[in-house]
Amino acid sequence: MPYFDSASAAPLHPVARQALQASLDEGWADPARLYREGRRARLLLDAAREAAAEAVGCRADELVFTPSGTHAVHTGVAGVLAGRRRVGSHLVVSAVEHSSVLHAAEVLEARGGTVTEVPVDRWGAVTPAGYAQALTPESALACLQSANHEVGTVQPVAEVAEVCGAAGVPLLVDAAQSLGWGPVEGAWSVLAASAHKWGGPPGVGLLAVRKGVRFSPQGPADERESGRSPGFTNLPAIVAAAASLRAVRAEADAEAARLRVLVDRIRRRVVRLVPDVEVVGDPERRLPHLVTFSCLYVDGETLLHELDRAGFSVSSGSSCTSSTLTPSHVLRAMGVLSEGNVRVSLPPGTPAEEVNAFLEVLPRAVADVRERLGVSEPPAVAPVADSLELDALGLRCPQPVIELARAIVTVPVGGTVTVVSDDEVARLDIPAWCAMRGHTYLGETPREVGSAYTVRRST
Amino acid sequence: MPYFDSASAAPLHPVARQALQASLDEGWADPARLYREGRRARLLLDAAREAAAEAVGCRADELVFTPSGTHAVHTGVAGVLAGRRRVGSHLVVSAVEHSSVLHAAEVLEARGGTVTEVPVDRWGAVTPAGYAQALTPESALACLQSANHEVGTVQPVAEVAEVCGAAGVPLLVDAAQSLGWGPVEGAWSVLAASAHKWGGPPGVGLLAVRKGVRFSPQGPADERESGRSPGFTNLPAIVAAAASLRAVRAEADAEAARLRVLVDRIRRRVVRLVPDVEVVGDPERRLPHLVTFSCLYVDGETLLHELDRAGFSVSSGSSCTSSTLTPSHVLRAMGVLSEGNVRVSLPPGTPAEEVNAFLEVLPRAVADVRERLGVSEPPAVAPVADSLELDALGLRCPQPVIELARAIVTVPVGGTVTVVSDDEVARLDIPAWCAMRGHTYLGETPREVGSAYTVRRST
Repeated sequence: MPYFDSASAAPLHPVARQALQASLDEGWADPARLYREGRRARLLLDAAREAAAEAVGCRADELVFTPSGTHAVHTGVAGVLAGRRRVGSHLVVSAVEHSSVLHAAEVLEARGGTVTEVPVDRWGAVTPAGYAQALTPESALACLQSANHEVGTVQPVAEVAEVCGAAGVPLLVDAAQSLGWGPVEGAWSVLAASAHKWGGPPGVGLLAVRKGVRFSPQGPADERESGRSPGFTNLPAIVAAAASLRAVRAEADAEAARLRVLVDRIRRRVVRLVPDVEVVGDPERRLPHLVTFSCLYVDGETLLHELDRAGFSVSSGSSCTSSTLTPSHVLRAMGVLSEGNVRVSLPPGTPAEEVNAFLEVLPRAVADVRERLGVSEPPAVAPVADSLELDALGLRCPQPVIELARAIVTVPVGGTVTVVSDDEVARLDIPAWCAMRGHTYLGETPREVGSAYTVRRST
Repeated sequence: MPYFDSASAAPLHPVARQALQASLDEGWADPARLYREGRRARLLLDAAREAAAEAVGCRADELVFTPSGTHAVHTGVAGVLAGRRRVGSHLVVSAVEHSSVLHAAEVLEARGGTVTEVPVDRWGAVTPAGYAQALTPESALACLQSANHEVGTVQPVAEVAEVCGAAGVPLLVDAAQSLGWGPVEGAWSVLAASAHKWGGPPGVGLLAVRKGVRFSPQGPADERESGRSPGFTNLPAIVAAAASLRAVRAEADAEAARLRVLVDRIRRRVVRLVPDVEVVGDPERRLPHLVTFSCLYVDGETLLHELDRAGFSVSSGSSCTSSTLTPSHVLRAMGVLSEGNVRVSLPPGTPAEEVNAFLEVLPRAVADVRERLGVSEPPAVAPVADSLELDALGLRCPQPVIELARAIVTVPVGGTVTVVSDDEVARLDIPAWCAMRGHTYLGETPREVGSAYTVRRST
């Protein structure tokens, strides 16, 4: 059964399983103890740290193991902010960071600090200039992901690190999505990653803090892991994480080249096979295994169910698949269509046949969802009015856009349709629809309930 | 090879290993996802939570999984303190809590809160009256371990919970040492535990918060585990933790009865086999598998090495085995001898032969250490002076006590010896030596360097 969501969690790499087995026997004791079981555990821990540090590109004494990538990010952000408290309490993050970074930023804001979000372009990439502009003399820290988790766009980390270095501000890189593919280039200061993203076991994150970065661990004291990660050492998982990182790295270049071909195939074919699709994310500077696209007039949750029924496990940044009813902050920051959003992230080893099978199944799945929503090419009709206002209050994505598409043909070219909607997603998807359809988006006016979004028919 | 330090970490229970294996295949996906791998993970997580909650004696929706027992304690303490901020910022803990509790208390103090330590008796037990006295109208939380991790004394949790309940103060119970043996009795409010203490895998703690307890999670937001434990769910380890808890509980009563016999044997024999030994901890209300004793005139680290060389892995609360050069805060709070301290904690399944072998090896090991330190029965000599002052500055445990023992015979009964020492441990071990030897401890006077401890020869 094809599992295409390795960006959420990758199945365990065989080497990880092997190492985990072995170290359940050898590595269950407390590595701080002086007796033989403890010394054996200490040797395993030291070796794992050496191996992981080598893969990260740092010194072993700069690296600690945390219980998850999220813990690594939280600890890294809090530690640098506290260590550089005297400089100021300003934090710079990109608008498309993982939620763990953004939630850490919220803590700073709640305590009176300030956060600047660096915007991204339509491909989801930041620019070094964006960081240069955001940094202030009070900036304690800047954060940037190595590659985006939802659309795969690779960020210009080395260039941003240069900008930050020139300003004397440490850069924390969230390398969760890319560390299995290779080390992060450039002069980063702090790096966080997560083992289960590269086929390691859950329960292990990496936090590397370069010597010289002021770092003050927060929370209750604990002497383990250089005082940076409390709790009993999860040694079997750490050993498995380090061993599997080395193993996936050995295969990374060849596997990246292979998966890149498959992802290219999806990128090219999906727009030919499925009408009204937008492929999002940078077409060149991107992760090798990940592709994201959005389908107009499609309810993302229903599409995921259809694909699941057909045997394909994928993920989505559509609002209707989240409990918050808001679309992914990444798609929003990029200003791209969010409805019917599908993220495909191929685990290493994915056979071409599975990708081909997906491309066979997808058009029917999308068509089925659209049919059920009553979407059809509107027939050419005589305009009924110069302008028109649609009450879409209470309708949820993708209905407001579907209603808009039905209405636009009832006004003449040059006429306007105004959609009144209280669905958060309309703000993102109506302009995206305009761009895809060649109409002109005129803007948004707040109403007592919801907002009015006005579109000029241009074709 | 006999491993007698299960209070630090127990070897993996076979059921934990089995469950871990199985759930590495079935439970690696994100339980928040809607596709089949996610749904399967969710089912495993729900079942594990049900099983763990049943063993704890709480509702499933009161229990979350954390990355360690330490995380459970830190999160539990911080969450209740924040949730009851309006009541006040006073915390009550016993003097013999695990360091994770005491370190959490330090955070409160650093933020301007206050902490009251409830003293223990010579057996290491608190009294309900001690808690009643410590509670104030500003008390936000009280903490008490179910049983002590160093000396095995079982605390009167149910009675203390009653006292706290009457005062309207929630009681957090650190059940790390006892949960494998049985549920915690009484009306506790919050409970923390650690899977690797009962033979589960590392990487899993339990945090139960009773409905109705005001609880406000601290740190960056994260929707997983009811917002109380951030990071990707470590599902294979969680499944293994829950399965092994059920398994050890099924064997607990029989195994407790069996180990209690072995521990009783150690308690009885060690004082007969080894001269000048003090067995510490409550002889009745105690954990079934744990016994601690201290040996006069012995360097704990050397003794541990001797025992390790003879094939026995045990632990120690002696100062010389810790990096801080201070004895365990537990032994200090109890006021018992700390030098030559040995903690034996038997894993389930320990055969009687191993315990017998330990009792055969121990007397020789202690004698060897004493010989190397030049300890011998001082010959009867004529008193040389009525009183005597010993310069023991720079000498480390157990040397000051050894010097004292040599000197005491050189003063007449009724005469005094004053030991000037800058070793922290002297404060604990000189009075303990007096109690063991039947001499009178007259007290301590600070000196420019170190302190002067005066002893009256009484026999």
